[in-house]
Parts: sequence; C-alpha cells; structure tokens
Amino acid sequence: MNMELWYTEKQTENHGITTKITDTLYSEKSEFQQIDVITTKQFGRMLVLDGMVMTTDVDEFVYHEMISHIALNTHPNPKKVLVVGGGDGGAIREIVKHAAVEKAVLAEIDGGVIESCKKYFPEIASALTGNPRVDVQVIDGIKHIHDHKGEYDVIMVDSTEPVGPAVGLFEKGFYQGIHDALKPDGIMVAQTESPWFNRDLIKRVFKDLKSIFPVTRLYTCSIPTYPSGLWSFTIASKQHDPLEVDPAKIKDLGTKYYNAEVHHAAFKLPNFVAELTRD
Amino acid sequence: MNMELWYTEKQTENHGITTKITDTLYSEKSEFQQIDVITTKQFGRMLVLDGMVMTTDVDEFVYHEMISHIALNTHPNPKKVLVVGGGDGGAIREIVKHAAVEKAVLAEIDGGVIESCKKYFPEIASALTGNPRVDVQVIDGIKHIHDHKGEYDVIMVDSTEPVGPAVGLFEKGFYQGIHDALKPDGIMVAQTESPWFNRDLIKRVFKDLKSIFPVTRLYTCSIPTYPSGLWSFTIASKQHDPLEVDPAKIKDLGTKYYNAEVHHAAFKLPNFVAELTRD
Repeated sequence: MNMELWYTEKQTENHGITTKITDTLYSEKSEFQQIDVITTKQFGRMLVLDGMVMTTDVDEFVYHEMISHIALNTHPNPKKVLVVGGGDGGAIREIVKHAAVEKAVLAEIDGGVIESCKKYFPEIASALTGNPRVDVQVIDGIKHIHDHKGEYDVIMVDSTEPVGPAVGLFEKGFYQGIHDALKPDGIMVAQTESPWFNRDLIKRVFKDLKSIFPVTRLYTCSIPTYPSGLWSFTIASKQHDPLEVDPAKIKDLGTKYYNAEVHHAAFKLPNFVAELTRD
Repeated sequence: MNMELWYTEKQTENHGITTKITDTLYSEKSEFQQIDVITTKQFGRMLVLDGMVMTTDVDEFVYHEMISHIALNTHPNPKKVLVVGGGDGGAIREIVKHAAVEKAVLAEIDGGVIESCKKYFPEIASALTGNPRVDVQVIDGIKHIHDHKGEYDVIMVDSTEPVGPAVGLFEKGFYQGIHDALKPDGIMVAQTESPWFNRDLIKRVFKDLKSIFPVTRLYTCSIPTYPSGLWSFTIASKQHDPLEVDPAKIKDLGTKYYNAEVHHAAFKLPNFVAELTRD
C-alpha cells in the first residue's frame, strides 16, 4: 500500500495530534470501550481506547514511572499496593521494582485491555504474567475497594479520561472509598489530566481530595502523546508527605524519567498550575 | 463559511499537531520566510513562520518568561541585554520588567515579523514601541554581535528552528561570537528545541557551549504548541551560575509560569534528558 495513513486524535473539540501509522494491529469493541492498537512511525506501538491515546512504546515510561515511584517512595514500607485501571500493566511493572512490595493487585474492569496489552505491548505488560507478587483481577475498581477496607498501603488510580467507564473514578465518593480502603498511613495517587486543558477538573479533584485527606499535592510531568504534553497527578495521603522524602534515600531503580531530583521538582509548579490548588 | 478549517503542522516527518482555525489574518512571503497569522479556537492568534508555530496568544508567556527571567535573575546587574531573533517582542517585554535593564536591543533579521507582530499581537509586542530603553534593529544578529564586542551582560538567542534563516544561530562559531560580545561576567541563553525530538541537536549545542563557557546548563518547560510539548533552553555563563541564585532574592514580576521555585526546578532533569548533557 502506498497511501500515507495518519491517525488524528481530537484531544479537545478544537485541537489534537496527528501521527503517521504503518499498521493497525488490533481493533475490537469490548464490553466497555473501543480498543485499538496501531503502529506509529514516531512513537512505536500505540494503545488507543475510545479514540484516545493511552500509551505508546516510546513515551510510556514517563506516565508509568511518575504514577508509581513518588507514592511508593513516600510510603516508608509499601507492602500492599492496588492499581485501579491500568490494564496495560505499566504501573504494576514499576511497582514490583520496589522490594518492599509483597502484593500488587490490578483491578481492571476490561479484560480486553489486559489481553491486548499482553499480546501487543509485552514490555509494558511484562509483570502481568508469571509474577507471584502480582494479582490480576478483572473487576470494577469501585467494587474492589468497597470490599477491601483498610487493606492497602498505596492505591493508584490509573484511569482513562473522565468519560465512559472511568467517570466514577473521578467522583468524590470514590475518593472516600479509596480513603477507607487504605491503612491508617496509606497514600493514593490519581492521574488528573492536563493543566492546560482540564483546569476545572484538576481544581475540583484537588478540592475533593483535600476535604478527605490531610496531605494533598499536585505534580506534573511531560508526556508528548497526551493532550498539551503536560500531565498532572494528584497525590493524597493520610500521614506521609511526598515533599518530606529524603532524596538520599531514593534508590536508583533504573528509571528513565523519575529520579530523586525529579521527585521534588515535579511539585514545583508554574504559577498558572499552582493556582489550581488554591481555594 | 460553514467549512471546518484545521491547520496541521508536521512537527517531525511523522508527527504533528492539528488545530481548528477561524481566520487567516495575514499571509506574506517576506525576504526571509513565509509569515502567517491565523486565529485558532484553542490558542487564540498564532504566528506561523515557514509552517512552524512560533507563538500563540494562550501559551506565549511560557517561552518568553522562561527564555528571559532565568538568565536575568542569574546576572546580578543586567544593564545591557541583546535578543537575537525574537521579532515578536515577547522576550523584550519580559526583559524590560527588570529595573536593572537600561538598554534592551532587538536584533531581528526580518522586519516583516516585527511589523506583523506589532499589528496582530499587540500584547506580545507591547515593548517594541514607545519604550526608550528598547532599541529595535532590523539586522542580522551574527553581524550585530560581531560589531559589539564585550558590550552585553546578557544575550538571548530567540531563534526559529535550525532551518532557513536561523541555521547560523546554532553553529559553534556563532556561540564564540556571543561569548566575545559578552562582558567578562556575561550570560547567554538559547532556545534548543525538544528533548524528545531533537536529541542530537541538544547534545551538540551543549557540547559546543561547554567548550566555550565555564558554566553550561540545560533546563526545560512545558509549551503545548511546540513539538512534544516539552521545550529546552541552554544557558551558558562566564561566571554566574543559575543554580546558585538565592530564591529569596527573586522578585515577583507578575509572571504566569516562572517563579522562584520554577527557577531551580527547571534544571532538575528527567534521566532521559539529563543524559543529553553528559559526554
């Protein structure tokens, strides 16, 4: 075929990215969403759910390292960790790099995401098979946290955008449920979209979490295939503060983005982002 | 007109952005390059030179603050400042916020850029007219620095991509010329493209500057309309180190991105960026 094919994602009503593709490897409508796997020239293989880029071979390390290591290095002894969503397995792969972790549970509602990632993103999904510390469950995360009160040291909300199956994962009631599923010194972290394009959402989530947890902080990182290229996470904690972590105690786990300096610098927000955390 | 018009920029051979437009305000081929001004829904007015986004109403503050304030706050008394390129005037606008600055010279090769920005981006170009501390020259920056040895405290290279009229602004000989146009404690800073897409260029520029200046450092910021959304600047200094600036001494100049914490955090690089600065 001599046609040039480009995949274009409208990331907002008025703006998006366009990227050259060489292959469509997989395309299926699961019970929950449309799952597509394409091969791009710039970013390697790309997972697209309901028309939104979830992860790519080239830049996946940023999101997966940054959702995982800040919370795990803030908790002094994270034995039991839950990922809600995250069916690609990237967060789980980072979590099991921490020796303290005895059990990493994945609660992903869509088994189709898990299976397609095992097949087409073997490096991202590497920890989902054959790892005795990993427990993969195809289940609604909201139900899972309801059934596991006071069990977890760290819970990560690795969700899609707040449309479709993930809507409930951005609601205050869900955050209260996470609070209750955490141990008395537990920590949660959630992906909270772009500080450029999703300002109202970030403000609302921050306010909701602040009303539930004593410590709530916003941090950012650079993800080129995500809307605006700047992405935010909100971390909320019952006791431990990510800003009080001693950089000298952060171990080198072979990461490509995260390091002891990035741990702290990620919380130093530009003024237009910092204002989202103020009442 | 009921057609939906979208402007698509191929930022690399294989990837780009696409953005909805409502107007083409200006389109002209100058002696040096194609100049277009369009109105976008997401980012307001957008200046496009030779098919590449230079600046937009919505995100311009990031680039202009971040090319200016780090160098100006690193120099203890920046009296005379030169901008090479930067015909939109955004860097000059930030520079004159510093009370120490007595003279800010703009050396822009293309008078067409200056005139179209005065007309279509009045807020960005605000300091280009009627400011006695500002000297706007339509001249080749390479010639200007050659004729002004040892004159400047700070020189900023606010160039387009290293194609067309800006090729010479990424060459080692030019950096040596800047070195010679600086006073004995002078500082230079240059925009050096994306750490995701322009890795060889960043490495080369860093190495070249390190061979000329005793202090050379790389820093980044988030610019959604630039390739990958992550942008780099390289700062090189004869004496003063941006890392040694006391945050308590950084004045609030009403910036929207830059602040005392960002000043230092911008230099804390993710591993995949930090490696570009190592031999």
